[in-house]
Amino acid sequence: MKYCSNCGQPVTLRIPEGDALPRYICDHCQIIHYQNPKIVTGCLPIWKNDEGEDQILLCRRAIEPRHGLWTLPAGFMENAETLEQAAERESVEEANVNIEQLKLYTLISLPQANQIYIIYLANLCDKRFHPGIESLDVKLFHEHEIPWDTLAFHTIQFTLEKYFQDRKQNHYPVHTHTINTHNGKSAD
Amino acid sequence: MKYCSNCGQPVTLRIPEGDALPRYICDHCQIIHYQNPKIVTGCLPIWKNDEGEDQILLCRRAIEPRHGLWTLPAGFMENAETLEQAAERESVEEANVNIEQLKLYTLISLPQANQIYIIYLANLCDKRFHPGIESLDVKLFHEHEIPWDTLAFHTIQFTLEKYFQDRKQNHYPVHTHTINTHNGKSAD
Repeated sequence: MKYCSNCGQPVTLRIPEGDALPRYICDHCQIIHYQNPKIVTGCLPIWKNDEGEDQILLCRRAIEPRHGLWTLPAGFMENAETLEQAAERESVEEANVNIEQLKLYTLISLPQANQIYIIYLANLCDKRFHPGIESLDVKLFHEHEIPWDTLAFHTIQFTLEKYFQDRKQNHYPVHTHTINTHNGKSAD
Repeated sequence: MKYCSNCGQPVTLRIPEGDALPRYICDHCQIIHYQNPKIVTGCLPIWKNDEGEDQILLCRRAIEPRHGLWTLPAGFMENAETLEQAAERESVEEANVNIEQLKLYTLISLPQANQIYIIYLANLCDKRFHPGIESLDVKLFHEHEIPWDTLAFHTIQFTLEKYFQDRKQNHYPVHTHTINTHNGKSAD
């Protein structure tokens, strides 16, 4: 932030009186511009086949960051929607899925990225999914097929690991977690 | 938003190509300024007395909105902190509490307010709390003393109601919820 979004004059970064952290302050119109973490939300879509086995839907990213790597469908929550609406909207945008029974699953703080991740378990209603504009590919994976080495984000790895652990007990409690590195899984 | 925070030129509100919602767009530097929901987080601080009874700590607000009404200590999550750090920081700022054992409890979408609330259960370590600058008063309440008619926010009422219901079974699962009105509890 270089300019005040209210009056267009330059802002300065300093600690306001009575505050503890530096903020962007407009000395022209006296507004303090707070900056807050963003919410990333999405789904872990589960397909149960006729043999009772389950497969997980992953998307291969067509956009940066992490172009070409695999992820769960997720993205930034928008104003005027609920968390569940946002998680479903992102899943539809990225994979054109038909999902139901969203259940809160992981809640992850990413202090270095100024984000929180909120991922829901969801059941796939059918296999008529296909890539949205932000995905190169969308596929179902058995556990032994999960591309652990080419996952895009630590948050996705954590959520998938918890899912396969919890599946053994068929019990899926909400998991809270903090990831103290950047979210991208390799050199960034 | 009237001006671009990157270059200071006026922005226009319109739907970008390939998008579905109107955004503030700078035609000078081509930046799209997305606006996203904010995270409010805090605690439901519990004091267990020598008789095994519990009391809940509430704060009487010294600031708008809802000046003079009662609330749980909570506020906006900041960049570079975890949800638990934010919930504890807000509790310390508003009530100077010493708390421990934070446990995720309610997760509430407020689409009309462009907010989500995330409230943790927490144990008070001692009774040496006192009002911070944003509180007129800080007090412990037995269930029958809760000021239901002068609570500040629907999110706080929902969280307290769930707590007293769950206390009967001594089982406190995570509750998700949506509040489709403004959060303030009376005419706003």
